[in-house]
Amino acid sequence: MNHGKWVRQELRELSKSLGFSYAPTQEIKSRLARIRAGMEKQEIAALLVIQKMNHYYLSGMTQDGFLFIPLEGKPLLMIKRELERAKVESPIQDIVALRSVREMPTLIQNHCGKIPKRLGLEMDVLPVKDYFKFHKLFPKAKFLDVSSILREARKIKSSLEIDLMRKAGKIGKKVYQKAKKILKKGMTEIEFGGLLEAVAKKYGHEGLLRVRSLNYEAYTWHVLSGPTGGIVSQSDSPMGGLGLSPAFPVGASLKKMRAHEPILVDFGTCFHGYQADETRMFSIGKMKQKFIDAYNACKEIHDTVLKETRPGTDCEAIFMKTLKLAEKLGYKDSYLGPPGLQTRFIAHGIGLELNELPFIAQGQSYPLEEGMTFAVEPKIVFPGEGSVGLENTVLVTKNGYEILTPIEQKIFQV
Amino acid sequence: MNHGKWVRQELRELSKSLGFSYAPTQEIKSRLARIRAGMEKQEIAALLVIQKMNHYYLSGMTQDGFLFIPLEGKPLLMIKRELERAKVESPIQDIVALRSVREMPTLIQNHCGKIPKRLGLEMDVLPVKDYFKFHKLFPKAKFLDVSSILREARKIKSSLEIDLMRKAGKIGKKVYQKAKKILKKGMTEIEFGGLLEAVAKKYGHEGLLRVRSLNYEAYTWHVLSGPTGGIVSQSDSPMGGLGLSPAFPVGASLKKMRAHEPILVDFGTCFHGYQADETRMFSIGKMKQKFIDAYNACKEIHDTVLKETRPGTDCEAIFMKTLKLAEKLGYKDSYLGPPGLQTRFIAHGIGLELNELPFIAQGQSYPLEEGMTFAVEPKIVFPGEGSVGLENTVLVTKNGYEILTPIEQKIFQV
Repeated sequence: MNHGKWVRQELRELSKSLGFSYAPTQEIKSRLARIRAGMEKQEIAALLVIQKMNHYYLSGMTQDGFLFIPLEGKPLLMIKRELERAKVESPIQDIVALRSVREMPTLIQNHCGKIPKRLGLEMDVLPVKDYFKFHKLFPKAKFLDVSSILREARKIKSSLEIDLMRKAGKIGKKVYQKAKKILKKGMTEIEFGGLLEAVAKKYGHEGLLRVRSLNYEAYTWHVLSGPTGGIVSQSDSPMGGLGLSPAFPVGASLKKMRAHEPILVDFGTCFHGYQADETRMFSIGKMKQKFIDAYNACKEIHDTVLKETRPGTDCEAIFMKTLKLAEKLGYKDSYLGPPGLQTRFIAHGIGLELNELPFIAQGQSYPLEEGMTFAVEPKIVFPGEGSVGLENTVLVTKNGYEILTPIEQKIFQV
Repeated sequence: MNHGKWVRQELRELSKSLGFSYAPTQEIKSRLARIRAGMEKQEIAALLVIQKMNHYYLSGMTQDGFLFIPLEGKPLLMIKRELERAKVESPIQDIVALRSVREMPTLIQNHCGKIPKRLGLEMDVLPVKDYFKFHKLFPKAKFLDVSSILREARKIKSSLEIDLMRKAGKIGKKVYQKAKKILKKGMTEIEFGGLLEAVAKKYGHEGLLRVRSLNYEAYTWHVLSGPTGGIVSQSDSPMGGLGLSPAFPVGASLKKMRAHEPILVDFGTCFHGYQADETRMFSIGKMKQKFIDAYNACKEIHDTVLKETRPGTDCEAIFMKTLKLAEKLGYKDSYLGPPGLQTRFIAHGIGLELNELPFIAQGQSYPLEEGMTFAVEPKIVFPGEGSVGLENTVLVTKNGYEILTPIEQKIFQV
């Protein structure tokens, strides 16, 4: 059969039957309105969206191409590959083929009668070489950084987005339920992590966790046992783990898990692009009282953050409160990392990416708002011995919060 | 125990016991010499390496930081996190802490007595916002794009790099051996893909496959069965698969695998950062003769590429030869994609990233050289029905080639 015809006639049906959901037109319209409010303030005439997750947020799809959003008038989706599929997946009406980026000015000119003068780009991730290319393609335009407009818009989640995060959280629950059955003495951290990932995929987890950064890479197999839990690495995290080599010096290693060690499993799941992030402790036999006590301290800090979680509370103030509490509980030098390497955040915003707004952290003084989602993760680190922690993904509701990761909050002892 | 002391005293030992190998000083020296030859030609006084895989190539580690390489004199590694670990992992002698990027000019000034005027940056991946930051930090410097210098240096692999790729290939062999036992009628593509990934991780596969691109994401679970094998997606690949949602519209889906369908498994493995890429066909019961014939055509095209593989052969000429052969064999409209969406490459260079030099492709007229490594992957696509293919990772040797993926070249029927 002809490929285009097959896609048009059968792909939508096949996808739907396999659980694909597509962004409704109204959802995309309301997201575009959020972005345009930001554009108007900065007097940006149009925006060229390039990065995959912003693309998905605003067009509902991730086929290869560019999304042009004028302040007024209809958006234009220019697709390199695969056009027919983009038409199936996006509710945007104007979708055209883009054989070469050189065609872009003409396509934009045809679409809205002119080339806008003040053009917004995602300069937080756009490579320099592409920036120079745009200068040549649009020699009269002035380019402005719109990363913060996009970040700000994405920090408040719609009910559709929250629902996808709830589904990611439910996959996470299945992973932790199975984990108790999979964990065995003598199994390596990486084997355990790999098997958990297999369980998650079976239930629809998408495998890749996105993070907005050139060098920081997210992954699910963050399984640290005993001394590897005390190892710090490249990531801005209380503990990085050993990893498998200097090329990937984070997460699970080939170390075998032993009885009575604290085993930390920080596992993110992803459904339709939306992530849930969660951490639970495991042990084979009972872990040392020192680690149980530290876990209970994490739980107390975690609950304190939740008690403060409602619209209006200042993010930095919450963080500072946890610092004091950790000190009071006797963990001044081990809270969020070993001395000198302690991180300065207790929660990170989460959604399509792992490092969205808000950050409940030092230097982040702004209020929580209804519809924000974050992963709160108190952790305590003992160099040479291990680390413990607890993490849940949380939604800020009108009067408080909702936990999106419905996993029992306890140490899983097998 | 004090963290730094623990890292210095025990981390190296623990890592070694768990299979870590570190780049020897001599290896890093010879890589630096390759880069400096390129810098000299373009009169670049110094280079600031930022991107993780270039960092790993030139410093032997991937801790968070910047590598400063003057044309003459010793390189300087400035580490944000984690300094003690960088000292364990890198053979570079001058390693210092970097608390803030603002300190960088001072650290460089202290290290070599001046700030070089012509500074090289990796503009193929460096975000614009960082580029502007460097302009402020080094107001008198002229910035030059050194991406091609780095790409050119990395295209020829050392015996150490080849050995790591061989090890990645051996992990792949274990994956395909186990795959025969795992594959079951009615299992979903993603469950199969997830279980293969778990096998690979058990044997030391690092999980992430790196690719040099803002938006293109590599993954291992490229399991396509029957009609999903005929679906094209965002990636520059003959077939993309259905994936799990519009947020990840590539690779394995929740479709159940049926008897007699062609099942394509394109699985990359990674060891110490180095990748091997391979594809084999599977079927539950015998697949239709049409697909067996197409597989045999892929095998013939694959063997033809290998016959031409030796130093001196032109890459584009090899590609054009395969086009003619595909046409002669009756696959003009299905070779490397459906009509209108056919890709224009038969092999991509591979190493630390999936899209390195060389490309055996249209428009890529340059000779093969000893020490190059590429993945050759003839594929044939039937829209609405499925696709077939064969792929191996290959080293160009002095007189010919060596296959680095020692998996039986046949259809795996279960």
